[in-house]
Amino acid sequence: MWQAKPRLDATTLKFGAVYTDHMLQVSWKDGLGWTAPSIDPLGPISLHPCAQVLHYAVECFEGMKVYKGKDGQLRLFRPEMNMDRLARSAARLTLPKFDKVELLECIKELVRVERDWVPDAEGFSVYIRPTMIGTHPFLGVGPTREAMLYVILSPVGPYFPSGLKPIKLYVETENVRAFSGGVGNYKIGGNYAPTILPQLRGSHLGCSQVLFVMQDGKSKGGLVGESGSMNIFFLIRQEGESGELELVTPPLDGLILPGVTRDTVLKLARGFGDMKVSERPLHFDEVERASESGRLLEVFGTGTACMIQPVVGLVMKDSEITVPFDGDAAKHWLAKAPGTAALPNSSSDEPLSLCGRLSRALLDVQYGHVDSEWSVVIEP
Amino acid sequence: MWQAKPRLDATTLKFGAVYTDHMLQVSWKDGLGWTAPSIDPLGPISLHPCAQVLHYAVECFEGMKVYKGKDGQLRLFRPEMNMDRLARSAARLTLPKFDKVELLECIKELVRVERDWVPDAEGFSVYIRPTMIGTHPFLGVGPTREAMLYVILSPVGPYFPSGLKPIKLYVETENVRAFSGGVGNYKIGGNYAPTILPQLRGSHLGCSQVLFVMQDGKSKGGLVGESGSMNIFFLIRQEGESGELELVTPPLDGLILPGVTRDTVLKLARGFGDMKVSERPLHFDEVERASESGRLLEVFGTGTACMIQPVVGLVMKDSEITVPFDGDAAKHWLAKAPGTAALPNSSSDEPLSLCGRLSRALLDVQYGHVDSEWSVVIEP
Repeated sequence: MWQAKPRLDATTLKFGAVYTDHMLQVSWKDGLGWTAPSIDPLGPISLHPCAQVLHYAVECFEGMKVYKGKDGQLRLFRPEMNMDRLARSAARLTLPKFDKVELLECIKELVRVERDWVPDAEGFSVYIRPTMIGTHPFLGVGPTREAMLYVILSPVGPYFPSGLKPIKLYVETENVRAFSGGVGNYKIGGNYAPTILPQLRGSHLGCSQVLFVMQDGKSKGGLVGESGSMNIFFLIRQEGESGELELVTPPLDGLILPGVTRDTVLKLARGFGDMKVSERPLHFDEVERASESGRLLEVFGTGTACMIQPVVGLVMKDSEITVPFDGDAAKHWLAKAPGTAALPNSSSDEPLSLCGRLSRALLDVQYGHVDSEWSVVIEP
Repeated sequence: MWQAKPRLDATTLKFGAVYTDHMLQVSWKDGLGWTAPSIDPLGPISLHPCAQVLHYAVECFEGMKVYKGKDGQLRLFRPEMNMDRLARSAARLTLPKFDKVELLECIKELVRVERDWVPDAEGFSVYIRPTMIGTHPFLGVGPTREAMLYVILSPVGPYFPSGLKPIKLYVETENVRAFSGGVGNYKIGGNYAPTILPQLRGSHLGCSQVLFVMQDGKSKGGLVGESGSMNIFFLIRQEGESGELELVTPPLDGLILPGVTRDTVLKLARGFGDMKVSERPLHFDEVERASESGRLLEVFGTGTACMIQPVVGLVMKDSEITVPFDGDAAKHWLAKAPGTAALPNSSSDEPLSLCGRLSRALLDVQYGHVDSEWSVVIEP
């Protein structure tokens, strides 16, 4: 007998372990197309043991969130970017096309059904996981003939158990996440399973996550890629008299997931107007040199799940780079009145924390403190 | 109400679309270990919609076959190699350890239950698909805490619809299957999904499969890798007066699946003693040069599913290499009395077909025409 689950205390929520009562599901068959979507009680998925998804990883997904503002309204954040990316991932795996506008409307309807699950504290939200899998029971490796698209909701707190506290990253140079000609720029299942073991090794060294740095034969340190579930940013003060601030993240060269938060952070930082913002190849040597001469100011990861995650240590096998993260400066910005993050950071007694400033600006949009075309209100 | 399926006409069997009546299954939980294995009617697998396997491709598998000889005995072929590889794949994905000897005994028991399904024609068999999936319902990317191992059986004919007829391969130079520091040497789901789209493109050019050739900056043509579901071999006559025959396949450098049939073919060919047998990097330029001067004698793929698959064409965007495959010479060997393949190919009027000769030798072991330590008889 199906029963609604009891509501949870938002402040104790961890990431991804609790689900709401319902799910959206819709099936597809080659030649027949999509069935009518339905919202049903969350329940098990029944698959033929030969279903493609279980053998050949014909699976892709998205990560979105719905936020409840002080005004009680529910907002999605740039959801069309997720629909576009899901369509690209699906196409790469021969999973079927879908109507992006219609899927978004279905997701909104699911959120309406589950609206009481959305916490109203800043930093808390309901994570939305659209998932597409190949269900055709056939052991030959071939194009998808049957598929299923479903969406589950999970009320979430901070992604890392450390909460908003800064984390350390293990600098992984042996295992490679993505490569030229590969599929690192798609949000598909096969990109994730191989990252778990390196992450587990890193956790033994006190790291919450790894940073993939790929040997490219052009530098001792290798080329900075991304983390298993975050894009990565470095705030570096350039050498020389000008001492210009530069925010650097690796470019979308096919090896990097085109993150929604990544894109947002780039646009926000460019809007701040007081630093250079670069998408460019970054060798780990440069990070090391900047650190040695006190010019590595901040490191942070970005992602829908983790939002903006400060990093205070880059741990290597026999050494560690410490990042001088000023938690108070970050909190200073987070504590500021909503809607003030976009002010130029011109006052010299204003403690610099790009991390905090970006978080404030992001929260402002997500929780509706400022009007933004990035916000999509779900009408009741 | 469950009913046994009707038996099939072996000669109409295609690969991987028909299953026997039962499956083996066993579950694992962190801290509790494995449940008792059970053999049950083949039925759907029920998964939480957040199960790891559906999002992060925590899945690996094996491909084995059971063959029925003229003597009515059922034989596995080098099954311990599959158990070893499954254990390596599982470990790479943080899936649990299992007792390799016990799993093999369980598989034998499943085969005994389904013994009437095993066809008795050469080239036909029952394909065995051990599969291991991460079932823990958790949306964070992390180590496996719950898993399932199951084995399904599928009576099969030839892998390619073309049967034993030679196929063409599409030379894929844009999409890359595997890379240094990656997971190309594990039999995990994520290696397969990205190969489907290139394969589909190749099929529009009349190719049954692709051959991945990776640009390495060292040659125009790139480095020969493998096919999506086969290892690849080239029989080349070397330049110069000696005109030595060399059988070449790419080495196990981490980018290649360590195939059981690959290893077997290497050992068989070395045993023949009348050609050089090399595991070495092979640039596509060399294949092209050999073809141009008439020294490319044979190309074939190997795999448990496809066995030894002759290739007659390597199709590129604007050209094609034709391989002078002599089907009659292959059939000549296949038609020879069982147990004769290992004879030295010394007679000058003996048509050379390494493909046929290797197939004969392989079938001899698999169907029990010759005694071999590679054969594992399943006692009734």
